[in-house]
Amino acid sequence: MTPVPTTITAMDVFDVRFPTATAGDGSDAINRGDYSATYVEVRTDTGPVGSGLTFTNGRGNELTCAAVRALARHVLGRTVEDLAADQVTFWRSLTADAQLRWVGPEKGVIHMASGALINAIWDLRARMADKPMWRFLAEMPAEELVASIDFRHITDELTPAEALDLLAKAQPGYAERLAVLQTEGYPAYTTSVGWLGYPDQKVRMLTQRARDDGWGAVKMKVGGPIEDDVRRAGLIREIIGDDALLMMDANQVWDVDVAIASMRRLAAFDPYWIEEPTHADDVLGHARIARAVAPINVATGEAAANRVIFKQLFQAEAIGICQVDSCRIGGVNEVLAVLLMAAKRGVPVCPHAGGVGLCEYVQHLSMFDYLRVSGSMAGRMVEYVDHLHEHFVDPVVVAGGRYRPPARPGYSVAMKPGSVADYSFPEGPAWR
Amino acid sequence: MTPVPTTITAMDVFDVRFPTATAGDGSDAINRGDYSATYVEVRTDTGPVGSGLTFTNGRGNELTCAAVRALARHVLGRTVEDLAADQVTFWRSLTADAQLRWVGPEKGVIHMASGALINAIWDLRARMADKPMWRFLAEMPAEELVASIDFRHITDELTPAEALDLLAKAQPGYAERLAVLQTEGYPAYTTSVGWLGYPDQKVRMLTQRARDDGWGAVKMKVGGPIEDDVRRAGLIREIIGDDALLMMDANQVWDVDVAIASMRRLAAFDPYWIEEPTHADDVLGHARIARAVAPINVATGEAAANRVIFKQLFQAEAIGICQVDSCRIGGVNEVLAVLLMAAKRGVPVCPHAGGVGLCEYVQHLSMFDYLRVSGSMAGRMVEYVDHLHEHFVDPVVVAGGRYRPPARPGYSVAMKPGSVADYSFPEGPAWR
Repeated sequence: MTPVPTTITAMDVFDVRFPTATAGDGSDAINRGDYSATYVEVRTDTGPVGSGLTFTNGRGNELTCAAVRALARHVLGRTVEDLAADQVTFWRSLTADAQLRWVGPEKGVIHMASGALINAIWDLRARMADKPMWRFLAEMPAEELVASIDFRHITDELTPAEALDLLAKAQPGYAERLAVLQTEGYPAYTTSVGWLGYPDQKVRMLTQRARDDGWGAVKMKVGGPIEDDVRRAGLIREIIGDDALLMMDANQVWDVDVAIASMRRLAAFDPYWIEEPTHADDVLGHARIARAVAPINVATGEAAANRVIFKQLFQAEAIGICQVDSCRIGGVNEVLAVLLMAAKRGVPVCPHAGGVGLCEYVQHLSMFDYLRVSGSMAGRMVEYVDHLHEHFVDPVVVAGGRYRPPARPGYSVAMKPGSVADYSFPEGPAWR
Repeated sequence: MTPVPTTITAMDVFDVRFPTATAGDGSDAINRGDYSATYVEVRTDTGPVGSGLTFTNGRGNELTCAAVRALARHVLGRTVEDLAADQVTFWRSLTADAQLRWVGPEKGVIHMASGALINAIWDLRARMADKPMWRFLAEMPAEELVASIDFRHITDELTPAEALDLLAKAQPGYAERLAVLQTEGYPAYTTSVGWLGYPDQKVRMLTQRARDDGWGAVKMKVGGPIEDDVRRAGLIREIIGDDALLMMDANQVWDVDVAIASMRRLAAFDPYWIEEPTHADDVLGHARIARAVAPINVATGEAAANRVIFKQLFQAEAIGICQVDSCRIGGVNEVLAVLLMAAKRGVPVCPHAGGVGLCEYVQHLSMFDYLRVSGSMAGRMVEYVDHLHEHFVDPVVVAGGRYRPPARPGYSVAMKPGSVADYSFPEGPAWR
C-alpha cells in the first residue's frame, strides 16, 4: 500500500506581542522591547499541524508576519513528503526567491520569516514521526542530515564530504551520551539576574536567588557607563563566589576599541565570555577584540544573519563561543551548517535563548549537537530566561540548572490558543 | 525676524511596481524581478514636499513600504530644522529604534526603509535650499558634513577628526573641478547590453549600438554556465574593441573557489572588474578572490548592508572598486561615511545604479565625491541603465557616455503622479 501523502492546505500567521517593555525585563544597552512572536501554523489535509515562530522585539513584528505571508506560496499545496525529499530546493525557494532575495539577501526580516516557516515544516515532520525534534534529528541518517544543508557560499570552509566525515567521527558513544542526556539533562545558565533596567537591589536579590536555586553560571548585561558595569559585576561576583561562571553581554553597544578598553576593566571579575562586544556584522572587529581580551572568550550569534557570517567568524578565529540563534537564521537546515562548522573548528555552541520560544527551540538543537555533532557538553550551556514559558503547550523543563529532554513530539513552540488570542496585536485583550 | 520652522505634517508611501520580469530586463544569475520602488513623500505645513525611495525587485516591496510606515513616527510632527540640527540623533532614531533594530540590525527591509525616509528628508532640505543635491552637499561646510555621520562602529577605521582632515585635503582645486563637471559631465558606463535573459543576437545588437553611441565602458552579466559566459564575453569584447572597458557581474552566484576558477577563464577578455563574485556578506571571501584574480579588480556594494560591512571590505583589502548603493544603506548620511572610508583607502567609488531611480540618486553622490572627497574622476564611473527614467519628474540626462549635472533642486527621485497611479500595486491599471 502506498502511503498517503500529506498536503499543506493552509497557513496562519499570528502577530503575538507581550507587553514586557514597561517592566524593564529584556532591557539592555540596545533593546527595550515588547517580546513578540511571529507565530506560524501550517495545516494539512491529513490532520497534523506544524508550528514555527520567529522572535521579535515588538514593533516590527508586523513586518516578519507580512514576510511569512509573502513566502507562503512556496509551501501551500506542496506535500510534506516532497519538501522533505529535496530539502535544498525547498530551502532555496524561500531564501533565494528571485524577487524577495533582494530585500535580504538572507538577512533581517525576510530571512527571519523564512526561518519561521521552515521550522514549522520541521515541526510538522517531527510530529508526523511522533518524535521530539532532538530525537528526530538525532536518529536521522548522516546522509539525510547533510542533504538538508545548502552548502552554497560555505564550501570554502565546509564541504558535504567533510560534513559526513564529522558526523561519522562523532558517532561512537552515541548510546552512552543518550543515557547521560536522559538522566542528567543538558547544562543551562540564567540571564534573569542582571538586566540594565533593574536597580542594584533587584540584581542582588535575583543573584542570591539564582545561587540558592543551584545555578552555577549567570549572565549580566554590560555596556552602560563603565563604572556602573564594574560596580554591578563586583556585586554579582561577590554573591556567586569564585567558582561560578559569570558571563557578560554588551549587546553590540561598543566600538571595537571601547570593547577592548572596557573588558580590560571588567577582566578583574573573571568573565567566562563577553557577548556581542560590538556590531553583529563586524567579523574583523570581533577577531581583533578576541586577540586583545584572551583568555576571555568572545561570543556572538544572536544577530549573526546567516551561515556566511558564521563561516567568517570561524575563519577569522573571531569567537570562542558560538551563540547560534534558532530564529535569526534559516531554520534547522542552516543551524545544522553552523553546528558542523563549529565542530570542525572546535568552537563550543551555546545557543542564544530567552525572548519568546527561544528556550523551547534551542534545547533541541543543543541536545542534538551533543548526541551527533560535538559529542560533548564541556564548556557548553543553553541560555535560560524564566519568562513567558506559560504560553507554550510544551514548555521547557529546567531543574537544578539543567534542561530536561522534551518527551512530546515536535519542536516545542506550539503556543496555547488562549495565549495567541489574548496577546494578538493589536486586537487582543492585552492590547486593547 | 525669526525664520518660521517647517513641520512635517504627513507622509505617504506608494508601492510602485513595473512589470519588467516578463521582458528579461534585469535578469541575472540570481534575480528575476519586477523593478519596483517603495516611494515616499513627506509633506510640510509650509509647502515643500520631500521625495525618497528604495528600490526593490517586485514581491517584497510591500515589506519595505510597511517598514517605512513603522518608522514614520520618527519624522511626523518634527521640524526640518530640528532634524537637520542633530543629524546623528535623527539617524539613530530610525536605525537604532529600540524595538525595530531587532529585525535588522541595520540591514535588509528595515534599513532600506530607513534609507528611503532619510533621503526624503535630504531631498526636502535641498529643495528648501533651492539646490540640486550634489550642489547642496558640495557647498556644505566640512563640519556639517561630518556631523551628519554616525561614526558608531566605524571609529576603528575612521574618526571624525580623520574625516575632517580628508575633506580639508580635498578642498584645493574645487573651483576647477566644478568647471570641469559643468562642462564635461561625469563618466558613465552602460549595463544594458548583457543581461542573462537576452539571446546572443540581442547582446550583439545592443553592444554594437552602445559602441555607436560612444560608450567606452560596458558591463555584462556572468554566472551562467561558464562556456556561455566565455562565449558572450568574446562576442562583446570583439565588438567593443581592445580599448573599451569590459566589466563583469556575477550577482553573488559563485562560491569563493568557483569565482576564482571562473575568473581565470574569463581573464582572457581583460575585465576591468568582477562584480559580486560571491555572497554579499563574505568579506573574507572577497579578500581571497581579490588576491587570486589581481590585477582584475573585485567590486561589490549593491547588497552590502551598511557601513560596518564596507569598513571591513576596506580593512581586508577585499575590493578595488566600491559600489555603494544609494538605497540599500541608511541614506546620504551613511553614504558619506562610505565615501570617506573609500577616500582614506584610495578605493575608487563607482556607485551601483540601474533599477528604478538609482541612476537619478547616485549621479549626485558621485559628483559630490568628485568635488569634495576623492577629487578625481580617474577610474570612476556611474552605472547607467536605460530603463524607466520616463517616470521621474527630473530624469537623468546622459549623453556621449557622461552624466550631465542636474540643475533642478533636490535629489531627483520625485516620481510623476501619473506613473505612481498607473503602476501602484496591486490597484493600478498596469496590474489590474
